[in-house]
Amino acid sequence: MVYATGDSIGPRRLRIGMVGGGRNAFIGAVHRMALRLDDKAELVAGALSSDADNARLSGIDIGIAEDRAYSDYRLMAEAEARRADGIEAVVIVTPNHLHAPVARAFLEAGIDVICDKPLSASLNEAEELAALAKRSGLVFAVTLNNTGYAMVRHARELVASGALGAIRIVRAEYIQDWLTLPIDADGQKQAEWRTDPARAGRSACLADIGVHAFSLAQFVSGMVPSEVAADLTTFVPGRRLDDNAHVLMRYASGARGVLVASQVSPGNYNRLSIKVYGEKAGLEWHGHEPEYLRLCEFGKPHVILTRGGAEVGGEAARVSRMPAEHPEGYVEGFGNLYRDAIALVSARRRGEAVDAGLARLVPSVEDGLIGMRFIEASVDSHEAGGVWTPVATHL
Amino acid sequence: MVYATGDSIGPRRLRIGMVGGGRNAFIGAVHRMALRLDDKAELVAGALSSDADNARLSGIDIGIAEDRAYSDYRLMAEAEARRADGIEAVVIVTPNHLHAPVARAFLEAGIDVICDKPLSASLNEAEELAALAKRSGLVFAVTLNNTGYAMVRHARELVASGALGAIRIVRAEYIQDWLTLPIDADGQKQAEWRTDPARAGRSACLADIGVHAFSLAQFVSGMVPSEVAADLTTFVPGRRLDDNAHVLMRYASGARGVLVASQVSPGNYNRLSIKVYGEKAGLEWHGHEPEYLRLCEFGKPHVILTRGGAEVGGEAARVSRMPAEHPEGYVEGFGNLYRDAIALVSARRRGEAVDAGLARLVPSVEDGLIGMRFIEASVDSHEAGGVWTPVATHL
Amino acid sequence: MVYATGDSIGPRRLRIGMVGGGRNAFIGAVHRMALRLDDKAELVAGALSSDADNARLSGIDIGIAEDRAYSDYRLMAEAEARRADGIEAVVIVTPNHLHAPVARAFLEAGIDVICDKPLSASLNEAEELAALAKRSGLVFAVTLNNTGYAMVRHARELVASGALGAIRIVRAEYIQDWLTLPIDADGQKQAEWRTDPARAGRSACLADIGVHAFSLAQFVSGMVPSEVAADLTTFVPGRRLDDNAHVLMRYASGARGVLVASQVSPGNYNRLSIKVYGEKAGLEWHGHEPEYLRLCEFGKPHVILTRGGAEVGGEAARVSRMPAEHPEGYVEGFGNLYRDAIALVSARRRGEAVDAGLARLVPSVEDGLIGMRFIEASVDSHEAGGVWTPVATHL
Amino acid sequence: MVYATGDSIGPRRLRIGMVGGGRNAFIGAVHRMALRLDDKAELVAGALSSDADNARLSGIDIGIAEDRAYSDYRLMAEAEARRADGIEAVVIVTPNHLHAPVARAFLEAGIDVICDKPLSASLNEAEELAALAKRSGLVFAVTLNNTGYAMVRHARELVASGALGAIRIVRAEYIQDWLTLPIDADGQKQAEWRTDPARAGRSACLADIGVHAFSLAQFVSGMVPSEVAADLTTFVPGRRLDDNAHVLMRYASGARGVLVASQVSPGNYNRLSIKVYGEKAGLEWHGHEPEYLRLCEFGKPHVILTRGGAEVGGEAARVSRMPAEHPEGYVEGFGNLYRDAIALVSARRRGEAVDAGLARLVPSVEDGLIGMRFIEASVDSHEAGGVWTPVATHL
Repeated sequence: MVYATGDSIGPRRLRIGMVGGGRNAFIGAVHRMALRLDDKAELVAGALSSDADNARLSGIDIGIAEDRAYSDYRLMAEAEARRADGIEAVVIVTPNHLHAPVARAFLEAGIDVICDKPLSASLNEAEELAALAKRSGLVFAVTLNNTGYAMVRHARELVASGALGAIRIVRAEYIQDWLTLPIDADGQKQAEWRTDPARAGRSACLADIGVHAFSLAQFVSGMVPSEVAADLTTFVPGRRLDDNAHVLMRYASGARGVLVASQVSPGNYNRLSIKVYGEKAGLEWHGHEPEYLRLCEFGKPHVILTRGGAEVGGEAARVSRMPAEHPEGYVEGFGNLYRDAIALVSARRRGEAVDAGLARLVPSVEDGLIGMRFIEASVDSHEAGGVWTPVATHL
Repeated sequence: MVYATGDSIGPRRLRIGMVGGGRNAFIGAVHRMALRLDDKAELVAGALSSDADNARLSGIDIGIAEDRAYSDYRLMAEAEARRADGIEAVVIVTPNHLHAPVARAFLEAGIDVICDKPLSASLNEAEELAALAKRSGLVFAVTLNNTGYAMVRHARELVASGALGAIRIVRAEYIQDWLTLPIDADGQKQAEWRTDPARAGRSACLADIGVHAFSLAQFVSGMVPSEVAADLTTFVPGRRLDDNAHVLMRYASGARGVLVASQVSPGNYNRLSIKVYGEKAGLEWHGHEPEYLRLCEFGKPHVILTRGGAEVGGEAARVSRMPAEHPEGYVEGFGNLYRDAIALVSARRRGEAVDAGLARLVPSVEDGLIGMRFIEASVDSHEAGGVWTPVATHL
Repeated sequence: MVYATGDSIGPRRLRIGMVGGGRNAFIGAVHRMALRLDDKAELVAGALSSDADNARLSGIDIGIAEDRAYSDYRLMAEAEARRADGIEAVVIVTPNHLHAPVARAFLEAGIDVICDKPLSASLNEAEELAALAKRSGLVFAVTLNNTGYAMVRHARELVASGALGAIRIVRAEYIQDWLTLPIDADGQKQAEWRTDPARAGRSACLADIGVHAFSLAQFVSGMVPSEVAADLTTFVPGRRLDDNAHVLMRYASGARGVLVASQVSPGNYNRLSIKVYGEKAGLEWHGHEPEYLRLCEFGKPHVILTRGGAEVGGEAARVSRMPAEHPEGYVEGFGNLYRDAIALVSARRRGEAVDAGLARLVPSVEDGLIGMRFIEASVDSHEAGGVWTPVATHL
Repeated sequence: MVYATGDSIGPRRLRIGMVGGGRNAFIGAVHRMALRLDDKAELVAGALSSDADNARLSGIDIGIAEDRAYSDYRLMAEAEARRADGIEAVVIVTPNHLHAPVARAFLEAGIDVICDKPLSASLNEAEELAALAKRSGLVFAVTLNNTGYAMVRHARELVASGALGAIRIVRAEYIQDWLTLPIDADGQKQAEWRTDPARAGRSACLADIGVHAFSLAQFVSGMVPSEVAADLTTFVPGRRLDDNAHVLMRYASGARGVLVASQVSPGNYNRLSIKVYGEKAGLEWHGHEPEYLRLCEFGKPHVILTRGGAEVGGEAARVSRMPAEHPEGYVEGFGNLYRDAIALVSARRRGEAVDAGLARLVPSVEDGLIGMRFIEASVDSHEAGGVWTPVATHL
């Protein structure tokens, strides 16, 4: 077996900028690790914070030249667009409500975008952004990163190959416990903005983690529900948005689904899972054991597929960096998404035809938009007393 | 540790009769094994089949005297009630639609009843039966047998003790795959009657297995939902009732729940589970690993409790027959329910005060009734387009 | 699937007696539960204790007639042999040192024997007993009960079928922690006799649990090691025999093995496992998850076989009582051994030809003897400084 | 919780060179990924292959300037030692037999060494190399990388804290199946050199993977066995070295151990585990589920500790990059070792006092030497018929 060891081919690396992700931020550093894993990009500019001091110091931390450590993302977009050695893509890792305006600024400057999820804090913004991105012809990747796990991609491939037969049932969960206590009211910064309607949008739990479960379900099953019926709850007194969500889903094909997202379930740090059952077989994958995929053909022995194993070829083998049971984890999954997004940007900039198969593996602005529509429809359904509410699927 | 080794104390055993459970039946034999485990009862009469030949031969199989191998349960109730050595309790293991008429016959003959789930094939029957049972003053146990597992009882005890704090979320599942193909149409006897509205009632999946998940949720959490919103599906063409059910639940306390039951999920033989999360802790139990209970206090290390272990006292220790990790299974759980039901019958017949704690451990006709109301409300909700539908909780 | 529901065919049940197993004993009650599971035998006589009062009271507990509640096993053997309705087989559940004399008494009275493991407390006794049993022509089963698990039998069948190719490696473990503290010195009765050379023999840990791991390895692999090199340890101060054993094994075929037995490994209640690897495939089974067998063909996806599943036929299906994932456990495995031993006794007494396949499934006096030789060779090896020591395999 | 996000503090990164790891090599690329994870070093020179063309092309692949892409490690050592911007440390990832000569060349050039395991292909070389390294005063880290896993470090901390009491038993395993077939004879390059006495040394299985299990046992238990008794086997016909090893271990404290290494156990890709039992508690860790540590205090509920969880502080928290259950894996463990080794090199070069605690976490040349002595003693024991053979522990 030849492993995708992650070395770049040749010294040419994509020039990347980052908005958000300064000192005290969390997810920006994860993005940077994922970026470094394969060495296919270098981070050369940033608006890591809107606070000038923090922006400067954060830039020093990670080796960004002082004149490219901006505190205003608009200035950064303009300045970088003008430079001969300007960034070729921007990574957006701000709180949700800034995703859309920042993305807009860089799209308008002709710079490809890699944006954290959810796509925005409101559906309107998301619709406009998707339209703008489409018009621009630029790459717009959304880091719904769990789609990057090798065995998630294998699961998708199995479903697409018809190994499960027509899909009947989709069950997705993302269960956490970190919001069990009112830490948002006690000044925990991460909890605070994620439960603030002004920065998070109409839902906290769905926007923060539900959308991951949703994207996983979509990516693996290849289907988007046509309607949802939702029950959102805020268990912790004083919290301003939901911390638990139970959502029923119906698909146009007749398939049915359940999506559960919770941030108040003690004993679950990050328990993400997807189960898909078809006429012929079922599969199950758990994010805390990402290297294994359970595949069961009806009436046959149950099978455990292992990433890196001889039995797992195709896409999962393509992105494997390590032999089986030298565990890959979260950063490799994130890194796979980055590697592919960078390949898309590079191809576009070189004027090469985009590999359509590869493009489908990288969550796009449309995927981000559909996630936003799911959130919107779920909140609408909940507010209307749990009635079945359509999820718009036109693009 | 002293184990409840299952030997009877003294040679006096309760005299039991059985209705249903002849040759070719399945669950009757399971009941008999569970009964034998502790040797506290002897099976001395039966109407094992309505077919006279089958009834006679089935009686011979299991050592019932020829004159007590009836083919008509009404005759059996009358005859046994007249005998000095007549049965002291009857076990009903017929298809669903016969539960109520059979139970009625024995109640009217003054004989205590142990009846398989669901209580009946229609809610009306169930309501009437519960009223009759109440008036009779007789014991009426319903073999919602998963409540008999030692670690399920431990879970209940933990919740009741307040170890989890106020309960916020209940998630129950019962997932199978045996109805993935249209075996009901192909003459498989078990599948045929379970999917026949005339014998199963308004729901197949909820009546057959959903009600087990429901009873488990009720038993452990100590709560009954006040309303449900359901999405029932029949995936297999030609099937006459649902084979998959997704149900949202709301409790009067503000707690929320999800119940999933499926008989068309390949790779799941009998995957029953219950997860309960409270303000302080969460617990998880899986029926295919019944000896372990996962208990997680928020912010503390996660704990695996093992049946038979020094760390597990109380009720679970009381019913343990084997040292830890000499696995107990389905039959022991069933046996626990039988042991306790027999104790209730014996106490009643001796005119002794019933141990209230024990009585609460044995699912009663009221519990059976509530299960029927849950099924009814779920089917009603589904037919009304998934609207929230009350579950009557008065008794 | 038709399940072996455990009901007897017809009312005729084998008449059984028991030596040992009175009040305060542990394993006798387990044997009785296993016996009752299938209702193929009735316990009608016993020398449950050598203390007359205890013998009488223990007899009453389990419904033995007063005149057949003996306190002297020799008297019992004689008296029962004389009765027209005398016992047809005896179950021996005394401490180790009494196995041989009790078995001898019943063999000499012409009564078939079912004896707990290890066969005796010394190799000499075991050799003599095996010779006597052979001469007698009687059935002599040894309750090395883990061979009774359905999936252990399936594992044996897979090995025998050549599915693994020639066996290279055998690894067996039985790990406990109950002797971590000096409870034998503190008067715990079970611990006391099991660590007493006079009652347990030359080894405690190997005789109590090591021999189970050994028998499991032998049963599944179909091989007995030709030599062993052992390191026995007594970790707890004051203990008189070993509480931990590490044994290397070599087979005549060139295969190699490791056997680990420990009673001082905190966190292990009863962790029994067997792993066998051949030229083509490997399998792994764990006693605390007895319903599953992991089977891995080299280069193929790993497979989980589930008892009761459509994929598991043959012997495992024959002995399954419950549908898949309605877990069977320790008592069912024990019950399988009893069912088959009873069938052997019945066949012999009716003068019928014994089913050779069935006979091989029931551990015999020869298997018990080989277990004793393994213990002896291991202790010899250890005392000689770990040198490779032959295990006699002639019978 | 603050995560060790892996960003360097400030732009200053250690200048690193690499010997070995060119095209077609495997482990070199893994080292480079681990190095990049934290961005604390840059790879600026290499002798990636002894073939000049391969060396040049491999250098281009990973961005090494052409004049620093050497094909002769001696020239590289000399040239780099002369440069003002020369490398500050060298990473050695050649086959085993070159470890010692390469390391010697760089030590003699005054350059700190990070060397793959095993330390060398013969004990003599290892002893000389350790002596040389000691005299040099330079840092010499050996990438026994499994010691870098957060939860392995937590396990070590627990043992050192006395949480387990005095250690009684150590069990370590490293089980693979990739050499089940004679792929070494069929030209598989990795298999070929690893089973070649001239390049691997006296043992293949122990040198390749047994030494990992050994180092894990040593690191966690804090103990080195004083004697071993070994049974090495070559199962695959034509293979020149062992492919399976069973080793008993005795410690001066009276503790006992078993180490099993196998490359011919179908169904095991890379199953590494360590179990340590003491007077008070036991712990278990598995390399294919590296994020969890099972800790069991005798008589208490069993505990699952999760990396990143609130319950896991100290060293494991220090090296955590991700929240709990965003799985870290092999590369993070490797990266932890690199981060700490780089810190040691940086401190030495700045003339700062070395953090003794940190130094103990990085396997040193002495640890590498002890691993070689373990291999040597095991082979000696095996060749002498399994006799107990001392492992020299002086340094």
